[in-house]
Amino acid sequence: MNELHGDTPDFSKGGGLLPAIAQDVDTGEVLMLAYMNATSYAKTLDMGQAVYFSRSRNKLWHKGEESGNVQHVHGIFVDCDADTILLKVKQEGGAACHEGYKSCFFRQVTSDGLITQGARVFDPAEVYKS
Amino acid sequence: MNELHGDTPDFSKGGGLLPAIAQDVDTGEVLMLAYMNATSYAKTLDMGQAVYFSRSRNKLWHKGEESGNVQHVHGIFVDCDADTILLKVKQEGGAACHEGYKSCFFRQVTSDGLITQGARVFDPAEVYKS
Repeated sequence: MNELHGDTPDFSKGGGLLPAIAQDVDTGEVLMLAYMNATSYAKTLDMGQAVYFSRSRNKLWHKGEESGNVQHVHGIFVDCDADTILLKVKQEGGAACHEGYKSCFFRQVTSDGLITQGARVFDPAEVYKS
Repeated sequence: MNELHGDTPDFSKGGGLLPAIAQDVDTGEVLMLAYMNATSYAKTLDMGQAVYFSRSRNKLWHKGEESGNVQHVHGIFVDCDADTILLKVKQEGGAACHEGYKSCFFRQVTSDGLITQGARVFDPAEVYKS
């Protein structure tokens, strides 16, 4: 995907940061949402792995750089307004969430409050030792 | 879902506007991404239909209010940081996108530019007459 031509996401919107949804290419499960700037998007295309821009750390974030749980990108889609990105990924390690769940959306809103759905794939304390 | 207790999305983040992903509850297809503020979120809970906040029009946006293509909400999830919302919806009319496609993510990034995937469900000129 290195030689991208034609239209790309419109990074003139959103102050240069666009939301990027990562979806499991096989199951369709929505794994997480993070943000990309033009540089992280270009790196994603170049590497074939998801590279986001961390708003909290204010720097590029190669997802899985610490945990090894990289996301192999199998397809990239943009929405009608070209201001949201959808990545179809294979999630290394089986879990996208730093809390050890497959999906970051592991809590459901119910009339009894937030209910955790699904089980942890890994123990964060074991993966992030630093 | 009117009597929501416990934690909710954290609208103190994102300047009060959080991204909300709408996903087809049956197929898992990601249909669109829009934004919610606390008021639109409360209205979504109250109505059981997706109510967003339109950044371009700067007002509440009951999805489908003009086209009739409302989104019936079957589940709401929040991510680990409580700053992104995932709605599991049934899309009335079969198309979430104002351009007539089922999903707003109907264009794939390829080395030949953006390629349209899928067919139009409706003709926008027929649906949005005003």
